[in-house]
Amino acid sequence: MASTAKLPDEKLSALIKKLGVILGNRVSVNESLREQHGHGESWHPCQMPDVVCFAKSTDEVSQIIKLCAESRTPVIAYGTGTSLEGQVQAIKGGICIDLSQMDAIIEVNNDDLDCRVEAGVTRRQLNQYLRDTGLFFPVDPGADASIGGMSATRASGTNAVKYGTMRENVLGLTVVTANGDIVKTGTRARKSSAGYDLTKLFVGSEGTLGIITEIQLRLYGLAEAMSAAIVNFPDVRSAAEATMLTIQMGIPVARIELLDTAYMKALNNYSKTDYPELDTLFLEFHGTTAGVAEQVKLFEEISSDFSASGFQWADKEEDRQRLWRARHDAYYAGLAVIPGSRGYVTDVCVPISQLAKCIVDTQNDIAEHGLFAPIVGHVGDGNFHATVFLDPDDKFMFEKALAFDKRLVNRALAMGGTCTGEHGIGMGKLKHMRHEHGDAAVDLMRTIKLALDPHNIMNPGKVVDC
Amino acid sequence: MASTAKLPDEKLSALIKKLGVILGNRVSVNESLREQHGHGESWHPCQMPDVVCFAKSTDEVSQIIKLCAESRTPVIAYGTGTSLEGQVQAIKGGICIDLSQMDAIIEVNNDDLDCRVEAGVTRRQLNQYLRDTGLFFPVDPGADASIGGMSATRASGTNAVKYGTMRENVLGLTVVTANGDIVKTGTRARKSSAGYDLTKLFVGSEGTLGIITEIQLRLYGLAEAMSAAIVNFPDVRSAAEATMLTIQMGIPVARIELLDTAYMKALNNYSKTDYPELDTLFLEFHGTTAGVAEQVKLFEEISSDFSASGFQWADKEEDRQRLWRARHDAYYAGLAVIPGSRGYVTDVCVPISQLAKCIVDTQNDIAEHGLFAPIVGHVGDGNFHATVFLDPDDKFMFEKALAFDKRLVNRALAMGGTCTGEHGIGMGKLKHMRHEHGDAAVDLMRTIKLALDPHNIMNPGKVVDC
Repeated sequence: MASTAKLPDEKLSALIKKLGVILGNRVSVNESLREQHGHGESWHPCQMPDVVCFAKSTDEVSQIIKLCAESRTPVIAYGTGTSLEGQVQAIKGGICIDLSQMDAIIEVNNDDLDCRVEAGVTRRQLNQYLRDTGLFFPVDPGADASIGGMSATRASGTNAVKYGTMRENVLGLTVVTANGDIVKTGTRARKSSAGYDLTKLFVGSEGTLGIITEIQLRLYGLAEAMSAAIVNFPDVRSAAEATMLTIQMGIPVARIELLDTAYMKALNNYSKTDYPELDTLFLEFHGTTAGVAEQVKLFEEISSDFSASGFQWADKEEDRQRLWRARHDAYYAGLAVIPGSRGYVTDVCVPISQLAKCIVDTQNDIAEHGLFAPIVGHVGDGNFHATVFLDPDDKFMFEKALAFDKRLVNRALAMGGTCTGEHGIGMGKLKHMRHEHGDAAVDLMRTIKLALDPHNIMNPGKVVDC
Repeated sequence: MASTAKLPDEKLSALIKKLGVILGNRVSVNESLREQHGHGESWHPCQMPDVVCFAKSTDEVSQIIKLCAESRTPVIAYGTGTSLEGQVQAIKGGICIDLSQMDAIIEVNNDDLDCRVEAGVTRRQLNQYLRDTGLFFPVDPGADASIGGMSATRASGTNAVKYGTMRENVLGLTVVTANGDIVKTGTRARKSSAGYDLTKLFVGSEGTLGIITEIQLRLYGLAEAMSAAIVNFPDVRSAAEATMLTIQMGIPVARIELLDTAYMKALNNYSKTDYPELDTLFLEFHGTTAGVAEQVKLFEEISSDFSASGFQWADKEEDRQRLWRARHDAYYAGLAVIPGSRGYVTDVCVPISQLAKCIVDTQNDIAEHGLFAPIVGHVGDGNFHATVFLDPDDKFMFEKALAFDKRLVNRALAMGGTCTGEHGIGMGKLKHMRHEHGDAAVDLMRTIKLALDPHNIMNPGKVVDC
């Protein structure tokens, strides 16, 4: 029995015994395993669960949750551990259900452009599986997250500007609720007006209303033509304004991502590349051959009005992959600038008309306060991350990051935006909820939480204060 | 005091007095007004509210609902009365809040492609207002419904295949909940992971969880080129299969609508048109000039493989309008075939791969049972309506229609579909809820309903049984 357990020893022993009956040897109190399951990828300190268990089916998840319900034990779902706001931390201890062994791709319906997967399937695994079908799943948050985790967090990332986020791409779910009931939501029809939209209620609920075990997803046909590019701008305002105009003109760009000069420098160092160290847009266009050519022409016209330079195009699969790998390395490149650092990640999203002002004001704020906080953004959605890289034990820097975060969120909310475009609330953004939504809406969320989980056993302490 | 009131006289007098303090002369018990507010556009018999009142602001709605909460009085929102499943019927009497005087367009943000409107604004009013901006609001259920009603019903119609339904196009809401609280949901950002998706919970809740008073909507730039067409097929299977292939190939058609031979005949009689009396697709393509030409070429290739004939193209605004007016007249054309009849409207939606089989099987069923039930469909979404036109007092025919509906819903659910693609549940489709969703999901909806509306005053008897 681990000495650091938060549950009383006696309760814990009884639980472990019962879990063993359900799961055999897929139950563990090994400290390093618990440590691994107690944190995500950002600065939030590890908070270990008391037990880690590995479920292989929805029915096992249901049996585990029934045990937790009986004994009022907290229960937390775990996919790949790539969350950024402390979503998996076991604040009150309890049981972590690792779903990574639920990795079956249950069905792919080529004719309907949909599929059904277990929660532990990762997005790369799914796309690998789909490789020869001409179909793909577009949502790409960077990390090779599990589809269950991405659904629970309402994730998005690059591609969302054309294909939508998990909100738009989850058609239905199997969810185990706080009493162990197995609920199926949604259908395979593309639209429905049949009652409350339970699918959308669970998407983004971060395990606080139930644990997602299966997901029905939309898929898309691979475009006939795809073309990627990077292009440099003299300043971040020009890059953001070119983006705004691209979106406002309705050019159906698939990806349009900003990396500021600070990130481009970090990237060149980390990835041994030699990109110009200027504010840069990474882009991708999908469509018919003629359609892509038309989009590219329009975008080049727009960007030339904003003094763009140094277009580099990549049409071949491997060239496009290399370009996007560079983009995805940005976070790790930032960490490498300050060895041993962690990222205090911000995630505001604003109406597109406010994007340039929000980014410029944020850069000025960063400069004024002497932070190392490079900016990367899914700018086509109005979403960007200014990530403060710091030693989390450096209290002075940490306070500065907190204050910066608060100013940034206030700036975005004043513009009609949100404190989180895609990372979710977890513990980290709880403090912004009432400011963003108002008391009445947060109280309503709390009412829903307590109705569905009256004993507050489902990932307690996340999303809503109970 | 109307003698037909369902509330006790004394309670009603007291309520009317208090309502008068809030609303002045915008409170009425006039019987013809109550009759008008007690039904939609289908066969469901009128059930009058006891009082009709006209709200002019969210604050007034809040005050009215507070009165209803205190006195446990049912309260029902009313927009334009165009619902089809008995959504506005006052089963238990109570107060009907007519929102048609809340018809302000609060803001249009051209640069962000969004707007905010009061619930009583109709979709035509909004598009009329947007006429000179180059923007439009695409969701088009046929009737000139209110945006509040369309949100509450999760409506769609033509155009949804490209632009989505109300689910995709409502960004945020102001809602008055069962205790009179005013809740704002959503932000103006295009995406957010900040907590439970209250917007999507209220969209489609049909006034049973709260009354929607303001809506933030997505808008779209008018395409550079638009081209509409009708084209005939030798049978309904060919038309449906051409549709399936169009969708599966990812051709971004804006509208693709089926009218079967029976409807084309009715339409020619009603509208004095001379369309070929064959199974017919009505289409529209939106895009750049080159893009539309490309889509049209691809569609013509597909449809020629299914023996299509008689293409008639309409590019000019007035020609397109004429074509879509004909399409929208279908329901009234059906009513005219049997004078004095009402429509028993069905609304299944299936995965696109199942569409042809579902329609063909349904046509066979109609023929076998000797019904007059022409078919019209938003076939690009897999959604179609076989509407049984009948005299609702003819018990024999009505029983036949009920049995037909049940077979149709069973057929669609067995194919992975839904009992309602866009009309909602109201009273009419309550009987299908447990079959479609299963007991656990319906019980969960009921839990949410009772948590948010513990005294069941919000449009009682609709969507979920309480």
